[in-house]
Amino acid sequence: MINPFDDTYYMKKALQEAEMAFEKGEIPVGAIIVVEDRIIARTHNLTELLNDVTAHAEMQAITSAANFLGGKYLNKCTLYVTLEPCQMCAGALFWSQISKIVYGASDLQRGFKNLGTTLHPKTEVVSGILAEEASALMKRFFIEKRNLN
Amino acid sequence: MINPFDDTYYMKKALQEAEMAFEKGEIPVGAIIVVEDRIIARTHNLTELLNDVTAHAEMQAITSAANFLGGKYLNKCTLYVTLEPCQMCAGALFWSQISKIVYGASDLQRGFKNLGTTLHPKTEVVSGILAEEASALMKRFFIEKRNLN
Repeated sequence: MINPFDDTYYMKKALQEAEMAFEKGEIPVGAIIVVEDRIIARTHNLTELLNDVTAHAEMQAITSAANFLGGKYLNKCTLYVTLEPCQMCAGALFWSQISKIVYGASDLQRGFKNLGTTLHPKTEVVSGILAEEASALMKRFFIEKRNLN
Repeated sequence: MINPFDDTYYMKKALQEAEMAFEKGEIPVGAIIVVEDRIIARTHNLTELLNDVTAHAEMQAITSAANFLGGKYLNKCTLYVTLEPCQMCAGALFWSQISKIVYGASDLQRGFKNLGTTLHPKTEVVSGILAEEASALMKRFFIEKRNLN
């Protein structure tokens, strides 16, 4: 039987969050945290609105999910995020002991993979889910931003 | 003329914050952010109280300082922190473009240096200020914790 709640299903939800960031003038990155087929956190980048470099989608999602669960470890959870996490977010994901990270587009310059950030040994990583959609949204954002300046 | 407001002076303030964390049963790490000889953020680790792995002293200090300054870049600021920052905090400090990081004790296992986290190229790093005091406080914390269990 086909499971309708696959990685693509949840990444679409993360993309909806990224679109909300876009509409607010934020770099469009969205995140979702799922536990047992239930979404327990939906967040998007808010660094401009909050004037805070730590307000990445993933950081808010970690805080929000831990708040929902009443515990700081996310070892039964999966994070869906439209862009490869940076060093800060990967470092936070390390501490959270999250079970699985699924990301869309790669970030060769600022992403944790090329920068060599250490994840928790139990964390599984899947990449490239709806990567083109996430990447297209980012490109549209930076083109529009350039045209406004 | 001797400047009384040197790195040791501010690190003592960070140590006071670490002691406040200790009293709350938190891993005792404290942080201070200073701009033009003025303390604009005083924080300590609150990961247990807030049930949140992102609530390290440095993360709260970055958010607090940006809030005070009304802007997210800390490129005229110095962070004093009693323990070497982890990957997450160093990643956040990268984004903040902070001018200077002064830390006390080294963290060979979880610290950003051995884990190779990239800092902003303009960020100066000083280490070892009141390292013994910071380290002694950490040791005392873990000994007391072990005896309680």
